[in-house]
Amino acid sequence: MPEPFQLLKTDEGTAARRGRLGTLHGVVETPAFMPVGTQGTVKAVTPAQLGEIGTQILLGNTYHLSLRPGSGLIRELGGLHKFMGWNGPILTDSGGFQVFSLAKLRQIRDDGVAFQSHIDGAALFLGPREIMEIQADLGSDIAMVLDECPPWPCSREACAKAAARSRQWAGQCLRLGIESGFLDAGHQLFAIVQGSTFDDLRREAAESLAGMDFQGYAIGGVSVGEPEAEMFKHVAATAPFLPVGKPRYTMGLGTPPQILRMIALGVDLFDCVMPTRVARHGMVFTPDGPINLRNLRYRDDPRPIVEGMDNYTCRHFSRAYLRHLVIAGEMLAGTLLSVHNLHFYLKLTEEARAHIEQGDFARWHRSWIGRYEAGRAVEG
Amino acid sequence: MPEPFQLLKTDEGTAARRGRLGTLHGVVETPAFMPVGTQGTVKAVTPAQLGEIGTQILLGNTYHLSLRPGSGLIRELGGLHKFMGWNGPILTDSGGFQVFSLAKLRQIRDDGVAFQSHIDGAALFLGPREIMEIQADLGSDIAMVLDECPPWPCSREACAKAAARSRQWAGQCLRLGIESGFLDAGHQLFAIVQGSTFDDLRREAAESLAGMDFQGYAIGGVSVGEPEAEMFKHVAATAPFLPVGKPRYTMGLGTPPQILRMIALGVDLFDCVMPTRVARHGMVFTPDGPINLRNLRYRDDPRPIVEGMDNYTCRHFSRAYLRHLVIAGEMLAGTLLSVHNLHFYLKLTEEARAHIEQGDFARWHRSWIGRYEAGRAVEG
Repeated sequence: MPEPFQLLKTDEGTAARRGRLGTLHGVVETPAFMPVGTQGTVKAVTPAQLGEIGTQILLGNTYHLSLRPGSGLIRELGGLHKFMGWNGPILTDSGGFQVFSLAKLRQIRDDGVAFQSHIDGAALFLGPREIMEIQADLGSDIAMVLDECPPWPCSREACAKAAARSRQWAGQCLRLGIESGFLDAGHQLFAIVQGSTFDDLRREAAESLAGMDFQGYAIGGVSVGEPEAEMFKHVAATAPFLPVGKPRYTMGLGTPPQILRMIALGVDLFDCVMPTRVARHGMVFTPDGPINLRNLRYRDDPRPIVEGMDNYTCRHFSRAYLRHLVIAGEMLAGTLLSVHNLHFYLKLTEEARAHIEQGDFARWHRSWIGRYEAGRAVEG
Repeated sequence: MPEPFQLLKTDEGTAARRGRLGTLHGVVETPAFMPVGTQGTVKAVTPAQLGEIGTQILLGNTYHLSLRPGSGLIRELGGLHKFMGWNGPILTDSGGFQVFSLAKLRQIRDDGVAFQSHIDGAALFLGPREIMEIQADLGSDIAMVLDECPPWPCSREACAKAAARSRQWAGQCLRLGIESGFLDAGHQLFAIVQGSTFDDLRREAAESLAGMDFQGYAIGGVSVGEPEAEMFKHVAATAPFLPVGKPRYTMGLGTPPQILRMIALGVDLFDCVMPTRVARHGMVFTPDGPINLRNLRYRDDPRPIVEGMDNYTCRHFSRAYLRHLVIAGEMLAGTLLSVHNLHFYLKLTEEARAHIEQGDFARWHRSWIGRYEAGRAVEG
């Protein structure tokens, strides 16, 4: 059985936390960033390359994998870890978010969501039972409950209804996880707090889910279109009502400054497609803000993306070469830029952990964000 | 200065040769296969991955690199080796073949070829001086002369004219290589024997080029559309008139059985885009012939592409997973399948070397081809 979450230290200047999350496939030092492996692969990057840059844990997408190749096939082949050649921890989302963002002809009922596949239009249904079975088939170290993420903006009435339904589904998922033996076997289940822009609904959802024995808590319904300031406000309005001794996760976030600010608000886990998605369009992260290698100014730039950064891309290749690959449409650009961008995110959380331990996180993260934003202004 | 080519052993049952080719960036054991890095990258594969599968030498394309990013830029950035992060030997073609196959509005003159770029239509010219300067800018370990490759079929008159022009250009390239100090610095220059389907013209071209001091010889004008049997006939009609002590190279070839048959005819060097190109379409090589992973029969196949084969792809991933990546259109499919296919080709030449040394190459290569062709018949 994995060790339960340990809160090692809480920052004095902020709400940042240094923790350690045990899973069936090893320990995750938090705050941690999870590269996203939507279809059973982090796009353009091998598991060996993920290991080299210090990846601790991956995120897999239940919706995508259940549609193609199917969770039954993955179970037959020994589970998602074996299937994709990744032996570290895997967290899977419940698929709910993709049902709401990708699927066609969606119909929300009290027992789950009926929808059509975005691939072939097949009629499908996901309820608490289905998503727990799928995540058991995948062999997720950390499963997520099914939830209804209301759109932004939404009425108080619609929000309250979605929050109530999400709470009910969360309870059903937990019961199914207990009855099936999934949780007893050491797998974990995280709840998701909704509540949109209504702080009292968020508090109510947080407190009621906190009363149930989940292994961790996600703050949902953020980064769904609302202004950035509101996003921080909702996270700040939710975190204090979550159990101190359980890990906290904001799903699908964010830019490097957003991640540091979320850490300062007490968030422990992050995932985001941004580092790999923008890489495939020639954009790379630096401490002085993101740069786009398509820019002519990098045509003969002999420097690595970030001087002295210890990843394969920065050790061996110039901006000029990487720009050439981008302009020529070479697949290797996607690989090398993704490796760098993921390493940049992983390094950022690694440094955050060190500064929480050292006790200077507040000053460090403000200074880091200042440099990044100043550089971004120049580049823009 | 690199060691000159050493012919270590000639097979008794065939004309196969075991050799060792020194270059400024290290030794190449022959027969050898060269992965193709058209635009300064072997498509979808990192130099580290190329090293892991035993790549000895890469081929770079002068035409593509001179158009984009430009050989002047590559020179400024320290040459092609440094630019693309590959420290082993590099052979570059002269660009002539691509001018004939890709460029628009081509006009062949006695001093070279005027043409338009296939990228942006810019008017360009490549003559012996230009292609020697470009290959010097790139820092090629082995440069190729400019030649005119006549189409198949072609008239005797047109062929004789192209062969005469190619001989003249070869002489000019050699003189320029001497005058510029390129050859004295340890770089090498290979000639190309043309002659199309006319054995006497091939012999004449071979003998006249053999009288000049090139470091190696390519057999050109094969695999340009002629039937396979003719291709072998032309190679067999050319090889005996080349200097025994110099390496021989058939450009752009071929399938695994073709490579083994060419080795049996006394060819030492090969390059081909096939392993990487077909990989990007889901096709992979096995000792029992090629298979296409898109086929439904591999949907739940837990086996690696080739059982026991020691490359990253075969060590870690099932056919079922690789098929999933192909069907889902994931970039990682291109990488993992290219790694396997290149390793398959590299391993094939490695085994050929071992069997030439052991003295059983004739029997082994017939048996290898027999199994491959039999399997291909079943799969087809």
